[in-house]
Amino acid sequence: MFLRIAGAYSAEQSGIKGVKIPFDPNIIDSGIKHRVILWEFLCQKYFGIAKTQKEGILMKREKVEDYVRSIPDFPEPGIIFRDVTTILQDPDGLEMSIDAICKMLEGVDFDVVVGPESRGFIFGVPVAYKLHKGFVPVRKKGKLPCKTISQSYDLEYGSAEIEMHADSITPGQKVVIIDDLIATGGTIEAIIKLVKQLGGEVVKCCFVMELAGLKGREKLSGMDVDSVIIYEGK
Amino acid sequence: MFLRIAGAYSAEQSGIKGVKIPFDPNIIDSGIKHRVILWEFLCQKYFGIAKTQKEGILMKREKVEDYVRSIPDFPEPGIIFRDVTTILQDPDGLEMSIDAICKMLEGVDFDVVVGPESRGFIFGVPVAYKLHKGFVPVRKKGKLPCKTISQSYDLEYGSAEIEMHADSITPGQKVVIIDDLIATGGTIEAIIKLVKQLGGEVVKCCFVMELAGLKGREKLSGMDVDSVIIYEGK
Repeated sequence: MFLRIAGAYSAEQSGIKGVKIPFDPNIIDSGIKHRVILWEFLCQKYFGIAKTQKEGILMKREKVEDYVRSIPDFPEPGIIFRDVTTILQDPDGLEMSIDAICKMLEGVDFDVVVGPESRGFIFGVPVAYKLHKGFVPVRKKGKLPCKTISQSYDLEYGSAEIEMHADSITPGQKVVIIDDLIATGGTIEAIIKLVKQLGGEVVKCCFVMELAGLKGREKLSGMDVDSVIIYEGK
Repeated sequence: MFLRIAGAYSAEQSGIKGVKIPFDPNIIDSGIKHRVILWEFLCQKYFGIAKTQKEGILMKREKVEDYVRSIPDFPEPGIIFRDVTTILQDPDGLEMSIDAICKMLEGVDFDVVVGPESRGFIFGVPVAYKLHKGFVPVRKKGKLPCKTISQSYDLEYGSAEIEMHADSITPGQKVVIIDDLIATGGTIEAIIKLVKQLGGEVVKCCFVMELAGLKGREKLSGMDVDSVIIYEGK
């Protein structure tokens, strides 16, 4: 069930074209009388864009970036958390993000997608499905049931260990790594080592978002790295 | 690069039609001289089917079930662990499993797919992508960045807690839950409660595998439950 906002604060006038806003009886019943308030309320609730109100304009959701919910000062002051769940919960956002990664892979010769638990699964499997490739999960230590190989990598505090099945990659296979986000690049560097250990070759790394300030791209120097959205900060 | 096995132990003669076996220089160099040993070695390595040799026949991989790697007596005696990673790492297995779930949803009117971390992501997102729906992740406590609602459920020993974003489902939305496996149904029951709490309606639950002996289907009585593969045991 959908409600389309009409009149002075219509989707069209605001610059958001063809957007359907789910009908929410709780909002309608809450006694909001003025269309402008209703519209702003809906924008905040469904698009989760604080900057909409701050900048005084409504966002036109034409690119994947428009679907990301940015949470300032989370988990700590100065950090903007980029939430991908708002991409996923919208059919157009989900489709756009997967298609954007597939476009990055046009002309790339590869056999299999490798993605780390658990947000790498979210974007990696649909891409593998669409391009008729296999998908190999990288999981946290102890989660895979058969013989594995493992790799440690440093975190800000301490370290973590990830694993792949020992028979998941065949020597000579060309691998594309897909994840939601590249930050410092530590996890991806560890995955590249695992793939190499199995005799595979990583030909490209694709991300939905890149935090350029954390210099993950430099850590993976020499590697073909591509991101749908690049944020300058951390 | 692919090697096709020819001769007496060909793919065709064994009943496996049109299967391409990745070329592995390590195997070729290892001095295996007899085609029969090579073929059995490759079957074990790439198909991971112990029962092939036990039963003395080679498997014809025509359905999703043929891609599942069954690990007897894991994690404890009497339990057969069903490993989905062997479905995923094969392009045909991955495609077949996603298409099988999509087929279950033909004629089902729904708005969004809900899937639990992390294997529910693997099968849920590609289905949402293919059918142009949204995807809402259910995650373990503390993983989602915005306001959440949570639900506890009992495990064999102790309990666990899962969460959804409070704004992830709009009242009136029709929801399909997708996961890799239904065992006792405890997680799914908890997800149904969360969706109801947000005003959504679960119209169907789809699984790749069902362990019928654990009676998950009974726990979800009244619900439309469908599984690609039904194993009689636990």
